[in-house]
Amino acid sequence: MLIRNIKKLVAVETHPQTKLSGADMATLSCIDDAFLLIKDGQIADFGKMKNAPYDNLPTIDATGRMVFPSFCDAHTHLVYAESREIEYMDKIRGLSYEEIARRGGGILNSVKRLHDTDEEELYRQASARAKEIITLGTGAVEIKSGYGLCLEDELKILRVIRRLKENTPLTIRATFLGAHAVPEKYTGRRTDYVDSIINEMLPPIAAEELSDYVDVFCEHGFFTVEDTERILMAALKYGFGVKVHANQLARSGGIQTGVKYGAISVDHLDFTGDEEIACLRNTDTMPVLLPGSNFFLSVPYPPARAMIDAGLPVALASNYNPGSSPSGDMRFILSLACIQMRMTPEEAIHAATLNGAYAAGLSDTHGSIARGKIANIFITKPIPTLEFIPYAFTAPLVDTVILNGKIV
Amino acid sequence: MLIRNIKKLVAVETHPQTKLSGADMATLSCIDDAFLLIKDGQIADFGKMKNAPYDNLPTIDATGRMVFPSFCDAHTHLVYAESREIEYMDKIRGLSYEEIARRGGGILNSVKRLHDTDEEELYRQASARAKEIITLGTGAVEIKSGYGLCLEDELKILRVIRRLKENTPLTIRATFLGAHAVPEKYTGRRTDYVDSIINEMLPPIAAEELSDYVDVFCEHGFFTVEDTERILMAALKYGFGVKVHANQLARSGGIQTGVKYGAISVDHLDFTGDEEIACLRNTDTMPVLLPGSNFFLSVPYPPARAMIDAGLPVALASNYNPGSSPSGDMRFILSLACIQMRMTPEEAIHAATLNGAYAAGLSDTHGSIARGKIANIFITKPIPTLEFIPYAFTAPLVDTVILNGKIV
Repeated sequence: MLIRNIKKLVAVETHPQTKLSGADMATLSCIDDAFLLIKDGQIADFGKMKNAPYDNLPTIDATGRMVFPSFCDAHTHLVYAESREIEYMDKIRGLSYEEIARRGGGILNSVKRLHDTDEEELYRQASARAKEIITLGTGAVEIKSGYGLCLEDELKILRVIRRLKENTPLTIRATFLGAHAVPEKYTGRRTDYVDSIINEMLPPIAAEELSDYVDVFCEHGFFTVEDTERILMAALKYGFGVKVHANQLARSGGIQTGVKYGAISVDHLDFTGDEEIACLRNTDTMPVLLPGSNFFLSVPYPPARAMIDAGLPVALASNYNPGSSPSGDMRFILSLACIQMRMTPEEAIHAATLNGAYAAGLSDTHGSIARGKIANIFITKPIPTLEFIPYAFTAPLVDTVILNGKIV
Repeated sequence: MLIRNIKKLVAVETHPQTKLSGADMATLSCIDDAFLLIKDGQIADFGKMKNAPYDNLPTIDATGRMVFPSFCDAHTHLVYAESREIEYMDKIRGLSYEEIARRGGGILNSVKRLHDTDEEELYRQASARAKEIITLGTGAVEIKSGYGLCLEDELKILRVIRRLKENTPLTIRATFLGAHAVPEKYTGRRTDYVDSIINEMLPPIAAEELSDYVDVFCEHGFFTVEDTERILMAALKYGFGVKVHANQLARSGGIQTGVKYGAISVDHLDFTGDEEIACLRNTDTMPVLLPGSNFFLSVPYPPARAMIDAGLPVALASNYNPGSSPSGDMRFILSLACIQMRMTPEEAIHAATLNGAYAAGLSDTHGSIARGKIANIFITKPIPTLEFIPYAFTAPLVDTVILNGKIV
């Protein structure tokens, strides 16, 4: 397939790279008046239109339109049962995330609903969300379990994720997040629940190869640094990659713990000071920011500007979930990154593509326009400039989606 | 036309009312499992589905969907020449609205571009924006001039607005906003420019009947209370209704001035204290809030909660314009109202429909489901609850648009 007359081909990789950090994020390589050639599901070639191959291939004319690598959304919880908009009324009344959790809402609300929903129905709902994010330009997505909190229900979620891998054109990475919250059954016995994760849940999940990563919600009122270390150590023994939900509610030590155990990402980071930034510098751990949650919870945003200015890489993800970010729209995440966190459009685009791919362990094959990478791209609607994307914050961006070299 | 099996018919008027204030905004009259009958472009009847008429009319089945009165967007500047996303880079770098204005950006940037754009091209661009907001559920819109700042260019905008009135199914109110900024030609001679508005612009605009309202940007660095009073007095003599842009940048006295001259609305109101709230109480002046600008400019939101709790009515509008709110999506404005200003979904819906209609002088004929009102409605996509609308903040809301009784 040949895409011709591309107004701007965006995020062209000039040399092999798995992530971009600090000042490098500000420069976005693009080719104006370009072509893109797709063969066997991969990006075969690209360049200036005047050098386009003469070929008998099916052709798409992209006059006036840009071509982007698909978004790589490295943090979602999109397998859940039912939206939670009624609880949202509590948020409007000013209750905090922790207060809502204490009232039996929050994560435990989704846990109860998921328990009462059979796998078919759960798959049906999750599948609709997968289709939705495809139309919004996402081509790769990480999906976490964590609304089960017992072996049976965690397996139910992970099996739904496996079915999504098999039945959608998305590239999907699964993450086991048994340590999302302490289930009611274990109230007051958090350490016993951590034992259960390590001894009862990890072995069958590893045996069935249902997960790529293991994640822990390392926050006050949820899991301690010690809990996190125990779970990560066990996960590493089974060969899982690891991730940490860190510093959403306070400075929890989660960032340092993630770095210590070689986490591929630490996520949220609303409370990140100089110490955490210094800890992240020159490591293999990607800071993943989730501004959709800051927007929805109406709380201060993480210090993206300080992180990038200090030389760190940053990835952006949607955190699509029913409690704190009921949206998987990465185009709106770009707007939030620029408008609310003062990232430039170039930085935001890198953060939502190559750096997102890194945080999902996919940047060798996804996240930029490079020969040999999977042909996951989208063609935009006609737009005047790159800056228009975050600026026109509700304008639809995506016109045509191509995943694995095929028009969806 | 008969719409059958409506899951929820929203904003049904139970008695004639032109606006809703304070605690009355919290109660939204709805009919579950309803029908709506449209005849001759008007709402002819509605009620419980079991009482639906047997008729040979064309029928729409709305199973699983809600029906809303169209949004009434009472504050836009959507006739402009070109987007201004490059300037937006300056905003990302942290420059204030006033600083950008001082650099020759801001309103004066749009003034220059509009001057260089002929009426045909201006109409073409504005027409595309009108079509865009129709698909987003808006049925009535107020559009301001103010990017001309000289007679010739202000007339150009007002004529484009008149053509939009004639050629789109939107109900449109025009507002002359010559006092949007002091043009370069009058730098240091603001009072002379006010004279020019009063003596050179108002007479021909009145003679050609090109405007319904006259508005003034009453802010430090723009127009003083004294300037505002002079313009409003002259406008009232010509029979125009009046409006005031007030307290966006500081407590300008604009609210008090608007109330004093019987303004149908005072708009922005980011800086509103007890004194301004007391001044607005029991008046005919509608406070219009524009949270899209607060979002885009990343500045604190107006105190909607305090205003409603004090018994005031509140309207919501998009402020669609290229500098401070490049979006006309009222569905996202609902989300901002709830998420950022702690309005309830019911309050936000009233504010975007009936109270918006009031602020555009249209609430006798628009803004609610009432017999005899213009049949401007939209049918939603399938949604579970009213609360889902602000909650799922990027989910498309509108499925089918009916304006003046006809499917668009």
